[in-house]
Amino acid sequence: MTSSPIAPFTELTTRLGRELMTALVTEDDADALAQQVAGIAEQLSRAAAAPHTVSVGDPHTTPNHIAGDITPASSPRNPIAPPMSIVPDGDDYRCDLTLPLQYQGPPGRVHGGIVALLIDHILGHAANWGAEKRSFTRSLTLNYDAGTPIGEPLTVRGRIARVEGRKRFMEAEIICDDVVRVRAEGLWLSPREA
Amino acid sequence: MTSSPIAPFTELTTRLGRELMTALVTEDDADALAQQVAGIAEQLSRAAAAPHTVSVGDPHTTPNHIAGDITPASSPRNPIAPPMSIVPDGDDYRCDLTLPLQYQGPPGRVHGGIVALLIDHILGHAANWGAEKRSFTRSLTLNYDAGTPIGEPLTVRGRIARVEGRKRFMEAEIICDDVVRVRAEGLWLSPREA
Repeated sequence: MTSSPIAPFTELTTRLGRELMTALVTEDDADALAQQVAGIAEQLSRAAAAPHTVSVGDPHTTPNHIAGDITPASSPRNPIAPPMSIVPDGDDYRCDLTLPLQYQGPPGRVHGGIVALLIDHILGHAANWGAEKRSFTRSLTLNYDAGTPIGEPLTVRGRIARVEGRKRFMEAEIICDDVVRVRAEGLWLSPREA
Repeated sequence: MTSSPIAPFTELTTRLGRELMTALVTEDDADALAQQVAGIAEQLSRAAAAPHTVSVGDPHTTPNHIAGDITPASSPRNPIAPPMSIVPDGDDYRCDLTLPLQYQGPPGRVHGGIVALLIDHILGHAANWGAEKRSFTRSLTLNYDAGTPIGEPLTVRGRIARVEGRKRFMEAEIICDDVVRVRAEGLWLSPREA
């Protein structure tokens, strides 16, 4: 086997890993689960034996940032990551996505910590995109005004509200069915000059 | 194949899923990754063919809550879940854990959203353990005083600070190497009587 670009094989493996997670949290029947796992394992084995032939068309994937990006919020090589694809939208950054069952907290609702993951990540993106110096989360306040549904289309929006020196004051919302479910405010800070 | 208790097979599959995630975010070499994936896939296939023979000793697993618990913060059947095992400790609830690379945000540090997931989950546990009515996160404020390291032992602590009617005011910290890295305050609320 010769060395090859990592992206397509990794993307396929990641996607199968995500399917594996969905199977694990969905099936109550051990036999049905075993059959799904066997199918996924067979695909993984075949791909591992012939990684160069794998072709993947996952639309939210940007091959040239895969090698370095392993974030659990959006990386195409990390099966934890919800399918976050962040795009500019006016002065905001925006992400449309639907979350499967492995992100559930209370029945039918996205786990509050996963909600925080989506918000923290889009705000980190909004604070840092095109910035000269990277800034990091200093504080984050989340208001859970209503439940955020599993399995329904969500829109996550975030923006810089204002800048004061090293401080970036951030705002974000999660919207479902035209209703704001979560509002957030955060402070992002770049490190002091040495 | 006859029907069987789901727990041991699911636990093994989950653990292999977690190993798969670590392999995906660790290896830069496609050939080495393919070999690891092939090994994991082979174990999955074998386990799927003979689930009744699988025996698992994962210490943080409590078999009798597996079937219903699919939370992405602590479930033994969800490979997203960090290995959170929450125990009472005086008036607090406490969890000791070390996070591998798939939870990284900035280099060497836990992603801010994963930090929020740990905090939200321990506070949900502290608010609800032994409570008559379940309460849910209404608001949560996180202060990131210092970085939370990947690959080092962390302690997550949370407690009820005070109760007012339907409101539970909560507090939590994440500590590493005797230094508080994250402080959080939250309000948990139980639904109004119908």
